[in-house]
Amino acid sequence: MDYDEPLFFHVIQYAHHADRDVVDMVSGNPDWDPPAALREGLHEYADAPTAAFQYPPSDGLRELREEIAERRNVDPSRVIVTIGGGEANYLAMARAMERDAGDEFVLTDPVYPYYPGKAQMLGGRVRMVPVHENGQLDMDAMREAITDETVCIVVNTPNNPTGAVYPRETIEELVSLAEAHDALLLADEVYDHFDFSGDFESALTIDSDHRIVTSSYSKTFAITGFRVGYAVFPESLVEKAKTRHMLVNVTGARPSQAAVLAALQSTGPEYYEDVRDSLRTRIDAFCDALDAAGADYTRPEGAFYVLARFDGFPGTMENVKTLIDEAGVAGMPGEAFGTARDEWIRFALCTPRAQEAAERLAEYFS
Amino acid sequence: MDYDEPLFFHVIQYAHHADRDVVDMVSGNPDWDPPAALREGLHEYADAPTAAFQYPPSDGLRELREEIAERRNVDPSRVIVTIGGGEANYLAMARAMERDAGDEFVLTDPVYPYYPGKAQMLGGRVRMVPVHENGQLDMDAMREAITDETVCIVVNTPNNPTGAVYPRETIEELVSLAEAHDALLLADEVYDHFDFSGDFESALTIDSDHRIVTSSYSKTFAITGFRVGYAVFPESLVEKAKTRHMLVNVTGARPSQAAVLAALQSTGPEYYEDVRDSLRTRIDAFCDALDAAGADYTRPEGAFYVLARFDGFPGTMENVKTLIDEAGVAGMPGEAFGTARDEWIRFALCTPRAQEAAERLAEYFS
Repeated sequence: MDYDEPLFFHVIQYAHHADRDVVDMVSGNPDWDPPAALREGLHEYADAPTAAFQYPPSDGLRELREEIAERRNVDPSRVIVTIGGGEANYLAMARAMERDAGDEFVLTDPVYPYYPGKAQMLGGRVRMVPVHENGQLDMDAMREAITDETVCIVVNTPNNPTGAVYPRETIEELVSLAEAHDALLLADEVYDHFDFSGDFESALTIDSDHRIVTSSYSKTFAITGFRVGYAVFPESLVEKAKTRHMLVNVTGARPSQAAVLAALQSTGPEYYEDVRDSLRTRIDAFCDALDAAGADYTRPEGAFYVLARFDGFPGTMENVKTLIDEAGVAGMPGEAFGTARDEWIRFALCTPRAQEAAERLAEYFS
Repeated sequence: MDYDEPLFFHVIQYAHHADRDVVDMVSGNPDWDPPAALREGLHEYADAPTAAFQYPPSDGLRELREEIAERRNVDPSRVIVTIGGGEANYLAMARAMERDAGDEFVLTDPVYPYYPGKAQMLGGRVRMVPVHENGQLDMDAMREAITDETVCIVVNTPNNPTGAVYPRETIEELVSLAEAHDALLLADEVYDHFDFSGDFESALTIDSDHRIVTSSYSKTFAITGFRVGYAVFPESLVEKAKTRHMLVNVTGARPSQAAVLAALQSTGPEYYEDVRDSLRTRIDAFCDALDAAGADYTRPEGAFYVLARFDGFPGTMENVKTLIDEAGVAGMPGEAFGTARDEWIRFALCTPRAQEAAERLAEYFS
């Protein structure tokens, strides 16, 4: 299993060189607009005095950490502003390894490929636990997999690629399991603003010294290239994570942090609601057409990906290329996310042409 | 020995709370203006379409890598755009450890404190080699220190804190030593635009599979907070470094990269020359006043720091605080950089009040 990025580029490039029009449903890069205040914030920053162009505090601009802390109802000292969710997860997983309490990472299958990639880079072993057909965790299997060798349990809710949103009981039990086995629970909540079920529960609502929550503004504000995310650590774990952050990156980019701060301060709830509405419309249209194509699929409770399975057409790279050439639709092969969904193809709803794509699929498979 | 950053903040905070006016010569944050094109580039980027706000390639915007590669006369495939010089050095040092060719880092004393901090975080041992009084490397001592256990030799030219610029023969011998002992030479050239001696020689002019060169736009363009640096790896080492960069940070901040690209494309040599002229004036004024104060000091050949020693007044944190309170000048204690210069105090010339500070010192010590 390879990481997301190279495979992702491989599919994108194949689609670009295709001899026909292709609807790109490969990448999870938002195609909608960031908040207006974000662009204004960046303009304002561009005219700031030279002193504002120098290092922010290593753990992020004070006002930004305070805005985050207030929203997440934690003390600002527990917040580290990171280079997107990517660094936030790296810091959390590295912090778990540093505790000398084992070396095994328990991940789900299917999985966001960066997690096993990071685990291996950190010298950890990886154990992947298949989820239920509906994307929910198989808690019997999780209980069996989590042992005293477990250093960290990594979950993503709302989930990429399954679209599942884990209920409160799941998060509670994961925290209990982490505590019982002296492991850490890492809850990656990067899609927290994309919950369509109303069931999303942040792991931060369950007090524990054994869980770390990460998130990012990449998807929230449609700015994957700005690299502003954050991690919320327990007090007992945060100092060493701050040291690593400083030794690896010194600090994050201040223009990006200033723009995100401006967006946080001036963006009302209607921005987030409008984006969700637009995504709901895309989900409905895409799923209706999948019905017409006779495909199995999971309707996402959160995030913005749909996993679909077409009879006799497993989610291999070869079949993904065939779909690009013959149907004009590009998705990600399910085998990129582990073995549990290698029959499936992931379609990202980051295009206004989601319905058109689904119609092409319906026609191709009819 | 602690890292630069916390000690640095400690001194800054002490100076801020002093009961008098203090000239801040603690931090190496430029106080001069970035190129006009940089601000314009950021404004232009702020109005770009949403697609331009998404992930750049993991190793950096293609045009930016090409600009860097052309200036450094290397193939763009060898360039990774990083989160400032900090991540560039981290990637280089981590790459050295991954080769399983030892575990010892050979550093200079005095040293930029992030190097030993990174080495320790990576699980390496640290061996520090005192430099000559004039800041040049003691090559006999270096030859003795570099063994088959050496994984990486880290040097910084022009040097912080000594101001030394290493001649070509030094760089050539360091490359030879690295090759002979299957180690890597890491040359951190972050001050490459601040050579007043005319003797600066980039390690890139010496072809070898055993040297990595890092640099950054933090000082070059007076934007330490933008976090845009780069590393140039040998072909044989670059792929694994790219993977680590991706797994730790995914990619760098695109607003920062876009602004730096605009500055590179539109900034003529007079910008760099003007900054150097202004620094030369500060160096002369400061050193003249140190003469009047009867201090030992090293006149920098490059970078923008002056190490000074006042008779019977060693560079301890306590004495640095005394200078803040009684002379109104804040510097960095020499003990922050190792033991070889613990009698000295480092003054950063990042203030228009350098001459005034020197006059205060002259008066205090007269």
